[in-house]
Amino acid sequence: MRIYDIIKRKRDGFSLSKEEIEYFINGYTDGKIPDYQIASLLMAIFLNKMNDKETLYLTRAMVESGEKVDLSSIKGIKIDKHSTGGVGDSITLVLGPMIAACEVPFVKMSGRGLGHSGGTLDKLESINNFKVDISKEDFIQNTNKINISICSQTTNITPADKKLYALRDVTATVDNISLISSSIMSKKLAVNSNGIILDVKVGSGAFMKDLKEAKNLARTMVNIGKNYGRDTIAIVTNMDQPLGKAIGNNLEVKEAIETLKGKGPKDLLELALILGSKSLVLAKEVQTEKEGRKVLEEAINSGKAYNKFIELVKYQYGDIKEIENPDLFPRAKYIIEVNSKKEGFIKKINAEEIGKCALKLGAGRETLETEIDLSAGIILNKKVDDYINLDETLAYIHTNDKIKGEEVKEQILDIYIIGKKNIKDQKLILDEIY
Amino acid sequence: MRIYDIIKRKRDGFSLSKEEIEYFINGYTDGKIPDYQIASLLMAIFLNKMNDKETLYLTRAMVESGEKVDLSSIKGIKIDKHSTGGVGDSITLVLGPMIAACEVPFVKMSGRGLGHSGGTLDKLESINNFKVDISKEDFIQNTNKINISICSQTTNITPADKKLYALRDVTATVDNISLISSSIMSKKLAVNSNGIILDVKVGSGAFMKDLKEAKNLARTMVNIGKNYGRDTIAIVTNMDQPLGKAIGNNLEVKEAIETLKGKGPKDLLELALILGSKSLVLAKEVQTEKEGRKVLEEAINSGKAYNKFIELVKYQYGDIKEIENPDLFPRAKYIIEVNSKKEGFIKKINAEEIGKCALKLGAGRETLETEIDLSAGIILNKKVDDYINLDETLAYIHTNDKIKGEEVKEQILDIYIIGKKNIKDQKLILDEIY
Repeated sequence: MRIYDIIKRKRDGFSLSKEEIEYFINGYTDGKIPDYQIASLLMAIFLNKMNDKETLYLTRAMVESGEKVDLSSIKGIKIDKHSTGGVGDSITLVLGPMIAACEVPFVKMSGRGLGHSGGTLDKLESINNFKVDISKEDFIQNTNKINISICSQTTNITPADKKLYALRDVTATVDNISLISSSIMSKKLAVNSNGIILDVKVGSGAFMKDLKEAKNLARTMVNIGKNYGRDTIAIVTNMDQPLGKAIGNNLEVKEAIETLKGKGPKDLLELALILGSKSLVLAKEVQTEKEGRKVLEEAINSGKAYNKFIELVKYQYGDIKEIENPDLFPRAKYIIEVNSKKEGFIKKINAEEIGKCALKLGAGRETLETEIDLSAGIILNKKVDDYINLDETLAYIHTNDKIKGEEVKEQILDIYIIGKKNIKDQKLILDEIY
Repeated sequence: MRIYDIIKRKRDGFSLSKEEIEYFINGYTDGKIPDYQIASLLMAIFLNKMNDKETLYLTRAMVESGEKVDLSSIKGIKIDKHSTGGVGDSITLVLGPMIAACEVPFVKMSGRGLGHSGGTLDKLESINNFKVDISKEDFIQNTNKINISICSQTTNITPADKKLYALRDVTATVDNISLISSSIMSKKLAVNSNGIILDVKVGSGAFMKDLKEAKNLARTMVNIGKNYGRDTIAIVTNMDQPLGKAIGNNLEVKEAIETLKGKGPKDLLELALILGSKSLVLAKEVQTEKEGRKVLEEAINSGKAYNKFIELVKYQYGDIKEIENPDLFPRAKYIIEVNSKKEGFIKKINAEEIGKCALKLGAGRETLETEIDLSAGIILNKKVDDYINLDETLAYIHTNDKIKGEEVKEQILDIYIIGKKNIKDQKLILDEIY
């Protein structure tokens, strides 16, 4: 077998065989095939696409490229969750403790990606002393004791994906359904949870801008999961405006705490309840989603969900003082009010643009070397369909850099589109794929 | 400007601007842009194509990437020639002396490529002591004195093409009209001849298998040449069977000598007369091609063309003893007759297959490091539409490796297709593009 012939076949629109896909994945992981040949193959895959079978072979080859994490010593039906990323998406911090409080083990190993605001690991690290780099043994032990653990991926999982992703990132070959789904799913499948719940975001603030493409991605990932014998569910959710009100690391942790106490933004709670009730059904804890929602609402009202978060922080060496009194979280030096110059209904808040503002304030990272400002970010005071009066506050900017804060203020005034009330309701859930 | 955005634009089907093309060519030549990004861009160009404008910008950027050869001190209208490569194609060795004998300066700088049999440089080097690596000054001086010089390209011409070609070769991105024509034409345009005559081969033994594609390549190259203010002509010629009868380095030199004496194969002479008469018109030496043909025939009949070849060899330090007595050329140890097991008309001789046989015998090179066996090759005794009797000789194999020779014998018996006479005439010239 020669890599040249594999490139040529994909270039000419043929499907690659299992053996061809294994050959290039293994050769690339081992360093026997150079970057430039894989770069050319990636562009051929990008433009000529891969079918479901090829995508499955690709995922499998990536799973097999590295270490696997065996969770079979954790009792119960273990649920893993992945979101394709959006703006202000702190759902993991809410969903995890909620379902763990209902006795369903929540197991999540997160990667550290780039983004407008930090990822789950960064958010958790905004809690004083919280340790995300715990051992596999601690991960398993904690989950057995308190039904939840969230840690960083061990370095030996899917090395093929790490190399491929780095190359895709610089060769404009990221946005392809097969490449995205194999990347996400290989990481999920290398850890043997029993059920996988996928939250595919669509809209201005998501990776996927187009509903049809998002549905296709969701379908492809569910197909891969099922072919691996895992219960897999995807929901496609709206990311036209940011989720919740907070964008920024410790701001989102504070918001998650509020939500676990039943006092958070409606959309964030609602999404957690939907994902959570599906998770409880997947874990056979309840028979129906309706029943699941009831159990989850009880967990919130009784304080069990909030207490589970406290437990998670304790087990991962974090300081619970800040959790119990969120005012103790470090605050940015300046909090700038963005006051409206118009009045009317909020028609639109482009999530991507808000995300870029947060990035500018230092809440996210552009390169893996960027140090994140954990206290920086934005709190939206008004969301789509809310009414705003003249001079009323649209949003608050939390920043340690006054000049950038003032620039962002002008940008946010432009990002908020104010006018008549929207005719159509803003749906949160756009599709479900089983 | 960022290379990432250029890759993305081409990936998404946009045309690249002059500035974008210059940016990636210069960045790649300077080593500032890595192989893997260009590999991905090349595949995007391959699959999404480039339009005429982009192809022109690409050619120009490649010309500008290196040194240019100024031939303005050579008097007269200087003709350069390029063939896209075929099997048994020794046309340069015939055409050059023919037009030089008619007082038209023939200037050719050749590259050393891969192929079934050697290139022009290898063929010339099969003449004892012939020097192809002469200086630019000698090249110019010789042409001023005897109207002909054929040398190897200086290393500083179109360095961008050299890097790009090496990368295309390993990333399955060679066969694209824009990439091929910019590669060929940049090398021609870096040398300022006045007229360029292009011989685009099509058929089983050519790079281009398809007539439509060959015409498109010819049209694209003529377009580039004209845009550069050079008189450029292309003819599309048949390469379904090998040209002439000899395939192999010194075998082709001997055949060229015979042809210059008027005793060579008809098709080789005919093609030389057609290309030659067009060259004489291009050089304003004659008014019409008909007139040109007459002048060229006289040059052959009078011995002037043959004498010009002798002069060329002398001026490039070669031994004329072998030219004057071709039997002195080194002969392969074994000459194996391939005798027919059928009788009838030759219907087909797949040129590519014959080429592969020659390669196996050592007449060509698979990698740039291969050492060529200058005496190895094949002489076709019968060509398409000839009649063959049982046990009559189809071809002669010249080899220094008896085992390989016997293998090739069996292959040649399969390659010759014998049957009824072809209904259609085998046309040599398929199209002309001005």
